[in-house]
Amino acid sequence: MTGARVFAPATVGNVGPGFDVLGLCVDGAGDTVTVELVDGPDHVTVEGRDAAAIPTDPARNAAVIAARAVLRHAGASKNVRVHLHKGLPVSGGMGGSAASSVGGALAAARALGLSASPRDLMAWALEGEAAVAGRHLDNIAPCVLGGLVLIRPVSPPDVIPVPVPRPPWVALVSPAVRVETRAARAILPPQTDRAEWLLQMANTAALVLAFATGDHALLSRALSDVFAEPRRAPLIPHFHDVKAAALAAGALGCSISGAGPTVFALAADEATARRCATGMQAAFGAVPSTIHVGPVSREGARPA
Amino acid sequence: MTGARVFAPATVGNVGPGFDVLGLCVDGAGDTVTVELVDGPDHVTVEGRDAAAIPTDPARNAAVIAARAVLRHAGASKNVRVHLHKGLPVSGGMGGSAASSVGGALAAARALGLSASPRDLMAWALEGEAAVAGRHLDNIAPCVLGGLVLIRPVSPPDVIPVPVPRPPWVALVSPAVRVETRAARAILPPQTDRAEWLLQMANTAALVLAFATGDHALLSRALSDVFAEPRRAPLIPHFHDVKAAALAAGALGCSISGAGPTVFALAADEATARRCATGMQAAFGAVPSTIHVGPVSREGARPA
Repeated sequence: MTGARVFAPATVGNVGPGFDVLGLCVDGAGDTVTVELVDGPDHVTVEGRDAAAIPTDPARNAAVIAARAVLRHAGASKNVRVHLHKGLPVSGGMGGSAASSVGGALAAARALGLSASPRDLMAWALEGEAAVAGRHLDNIAPCVLGGLVLIRPVSPPDVIPVPVPRPPWVALVSPAVRVETRAARAILPPQTDRAEWLLQMANTAALVLAFATGDHALLSRALSDVFAEPRRAPLIPHFHDVKAAALAAGALGCSISGAGPTVFALAADEATARRCATGMQAAFGAVPSTIHVGPVSREGARPA
Repeated sequence: MTGARVFAPATVGNVGPGFDVLGLCVDGAGDTVTVELVDGPDHVTVEGRDAAAIPTDPARNAAVIAARAVLRHAGASKNVRVHLHKGLPVSGGMGGSAASSVGGALAAARALGLSASPRDLMAWALEGEAAVAGRHLDNIAPCVLGGLVLIRPVSPPDVIPVPVPRPPWVALVSPAVRVETRAARAILPPQTDRAEWLLQMANTAALVLAFATGDHALLSRALSDVFAEPRRAPLIPHFHDVKAAALAAGALGCSISGAGPTVFALAADEATARRCATGMQAAFGAVPSTIHVGPVSREGARPA
């Protein structure tokens, strides 16, 4: 029996103004996926966070779907036995389905002894992600590559790693409310006024420049989402208080992670990020929440 | 009689996808503005390119209006005698009105012995620009600062110099047709579909990253304007042939400079930029055109 185990980290989609085009990898939290090649039928077991909400029908499980994409590519006649240890919430806005998908793909590739390029891994993982959360690379790409990734939505997508010479720390606070990605997308308008998208565009360009040059003052000015955040904030209880708490605790910036409900803050150092997380959690009031604080991960999914 | 003379260089507004938010300073072509402080009434003389099209009514002349903004700031009781030597076309898309405005402001400040910050200069110059071409900083800012400038359209605007460690050369080819900035803006829709502005946003962020990291391959992929160029191309005869000629001659990219009709191409070196300019001029066919080839200017307006 041949197998491999992989850790696939959390990711922040959108990263403020970078709607659908930016993603950031955060270290320390993630899903762990074990794939074994077997002769029997596909099988998946799930434990850990929100495990009960994850399909154990192999045909509907993101990790299995991604692993099967690898098998198909390799022309392997085997099936997979997958064990998924969830460290990330379901529909949490921390890239949980992307992590399961990337983990499934990378573990399957390693179990088969395939040397897979990041491009291959992203394509296989996207099959899992697309089945459960839509066809988006903004979590998949940073989960594979680590760091900050900019995606030009051309066909095929142009995935651009952004250098991060002075990586900030990330505070992620996840309230115990459910925001479905599809619902969070449905409240966004199909068309946008010029002044709004020009500002969003300038902010995204400035944010990428700020990461690439290590300019935290610019990062702080540019981390401003005028498109999705104002419209999605009502889906997250106490969002404005939570953001204010992060900024009061010294965050460089704060916004919704992916489609929410997780709220992220960036900070110059670990101590500040921890203070932000504590303040944000307090601002959620009676709404229970969980915290993760970690650095921007220079590394994406990797053997565990 | 106290006076000063200033050279204010050409600028490319928009720079491909960066509609209204990016501007690039190009060396070697520009307006030269002389300002003398006098006791008599304001007076302006104009010579050089398109001189007949420039108002010699001081109240409508951009260089005078900008110079007067400086006098007002300084509380000076003097008036100005301005001589404007135009090196840039009127309504050409090479930042001619911005150059006259910046030149007028900087020359007036120097004549008064004021040490003016870039921010001050931009504010004064904007008064001249706004009177003749609209309230935009995407030519003013690079004309003052040099290099590539990103503008976050907040109030007051956040003007961000982008490092350019590996500056490309610029070929500018101006056909003898008139495109009014206001008309060129009127054909652009007030609202834009999400897929379109997301691509424009990603291209702008990627272009800024490409300049900041000296990645010419990325610059080439990112220099793609899906918003203004397709809609304005019909205003410029033979635009598609001209662009194709630039790319065939080795350009990294090619698009409309500002609101046109000047077309610019970026190239890795001077020889390639000159080949691009020649090819582009040929592709304009029977439409007469003028060429300027220069490096990205690290320096903006300066004493002449």
